[in-house]
Amino acid sequence: MPKSTARKGRLVIVTGIPGVGKTTVLTAALAACNARSVKVDLVNYGNMMFEEASKKGLVKTRDEMRRLGVKTQVQLQLAAAKAIARIAAKGNVLLDTHMFINTPIGFMPGIPSWVGESLKPDSIALLEADPAEVSKRRQKDAAIRAREADSPERISEHQLLGRSGAAALAVQTGCTVVIAHNREGAAEAAAKVIADLFM
Amino acid sequence: MPKSTARKGRLVIVTGIPGVGKTTVLTAALAACNARSVKVDLVNYGNMMFEEASKKGLVKTRDEMRRLGVKTQVQLQLAAAKAIARIAAKGNVLLDTHMFINTPIGFMPGIPSWVGESLKPDSIALLEADPAEVSKRRQKDAAIRAREADSPERISEHQLLGRSGAAALAVQTGCTVVIAHNREGAAEAAAKVIADLFM
Amino acid sequence: MPKSTARKGRLVIVTGIPGVGKTTVLTAALAACNARSVKVDLVNYGNMMFEEASKKGLVKTRDEMRRLGVKTQVQLQLAAAKAIARIAAKGNVLLDTHMFINTPIGFMPGIPSWVGESLKPDSIALLEADPAEVSKRRQKDAAIRAREADSPERISEHQLLGRSGAAALAVQTGCTVVIAHNREGAAEAAAKVIADLFM
Repeated sequence: MPKSTARKGRLVIVTGIPGVGKTTVLTAALAACNARSVKVDLVNYGNMMFEEASKKGLVKTRDEMRRLGVKTQVQLQLAAAKAIARIAAKGNVLLDTHMFINTPIGFMPGIPSWVGESLKPDSIALLEADPAEVSKRRQKDAAIRAREADSPERISEHQLLGRSGAAALAVQTGCTVVIAHNREGAAEAAAKVIADLFM
Repeated sequence: MPKSTARKGRLVIVTGIPGVGKTTVLTAALAACNARSVKVDLVNYGNMMFEEASKKGLVKTRDEMRRLGVKTQVQLQLAAAKAIARIAAKGNVLLDTHMFINTPIGFMPGIPSWVGESLKPDSIALLEADPAEVSKRRQKDAAIRAREADSPERISEHQLLGRSGAAALAVQTGCTVVIAHNREGAAEAAAKVIADLFM
Repeated sequence: MPKSTARKGRLVIVTGIPGVGKTTVLTAALAACNARSVKVDLVNYGNMMFEEASKKGLVKTRDEMRRLGVKTQVQLQLAAAKAIARIAAKGNVLLDTHMFINTPIGFMPGIPSWVGESLKPDSIALLEADPAEVSKRRQKDAAIRAREADSPERISEHQLLGRSGAAALAVQTGCTVVIAHNREGAAEAAAKVIADLFM
């Protein structure tokens, strides 16, 4: 069932595969909200999970997170979801996360049903980019962050699977789905699509 | 879980984006059922929701419906679902609705899980058409019904999201999914695909 | 919610449409597991359902299964799921099934939510092949197994719907999704992707 009337702000989840340009777009979206005097907290699901994992001594770096077993990640997801729900109860939240995380054992859902049920988002915004552009960006970043040099075909599969996951979550929770296209040199346009969800 | 054995007829949901030619196909599907002496009630989900909204004084025209908040639409969805379930208990129902409604805050699920659970459809028939044709039809109708002049690319996204939503509902409720193609000048063929679901 | 800690092995579901080459790939995957001394039981969902149906006198041949009503198939699905869960409690299981079965009344979900909840798979591996190749294989087999001579377009729809169903199940149960491509003459590569899920 959809969210209760107790929540004060809106909870908008933004997902996007590595290399889609999410950091740039989220920064611009927050700036657009600020320019319109709309207060929004940016929360990173991975950071929240990393905090929980660090506390438990499971990992030392963020990159080690994807090597954790499915079971451990599920527990961290739930702990993070509860923490985020507490923030969302007080005001607008822009939640930075992934629909599917590419792990050694397949695409793991970043927002499984029990997390969706706990978060009860208003909207899921899928930030997408041209797979060929994403592939190029990943190759440039390879030295720094050791991303998989995925082919455009594999990137496209990952991105499309995200749409299906969002549709499933929308059907489950009643949230809306927004597809925001991050075209080369047009991050502001994608940011506006996201910022408008708080207006 | 799937529908109980108490229901007498079949409940077939037909979805399709604006401009897909749904009205024409549904009319032809009903005629095909009549020609074979199979009694089917055509029910429009939007009309049922509009009736409920009108009773509550929330709207005066059908077009105002998509300006309502998510929470209000959810309540109207539930009220309509209950009314439809009462009709379906007595005989065959062809339910005209949308998988995702294009609202100012994104694609809103027309058949969220609690509605699916309440309806327990036998089948979901996705009426689809070539996005370029849909785009042309929308432009022609613009003067009359003020539809968004969507690009074929956006229309394709909307249509594909509908398939993902139908797959999610099929997994949830056990209903079957049918993709009916409404090709230019061949509405009868699409209508037959839908009518056959009642044979 | 995800699987309990009581299970000893991993449960990997492999789905693929008729003609995708699943039998060949599964045989090679089992051989790869054996070569690495990893014990895996191959279980065929259709066979388990057929056993249950035979016991009840509902069918005599495997092909008659798809002519059964939805309600009967649901009961058979549940009985099979329980039997499989008992096997999976003891060790690794490779479960051969379908995401959507092409029936006369549409694509029926092979792993509806109550089955997914009962199985709690670790991963769903979607075995896919080029629709044109699948179409050719079906035409060659037509004399023997009376498969529908589907067009590549229809085959592509069926295959894509499977991805959406897998995404929905992943969101529901937390399992991972793997897309394994069965390219012409490269069944070993697809088999390795599946076998690696047990390492």
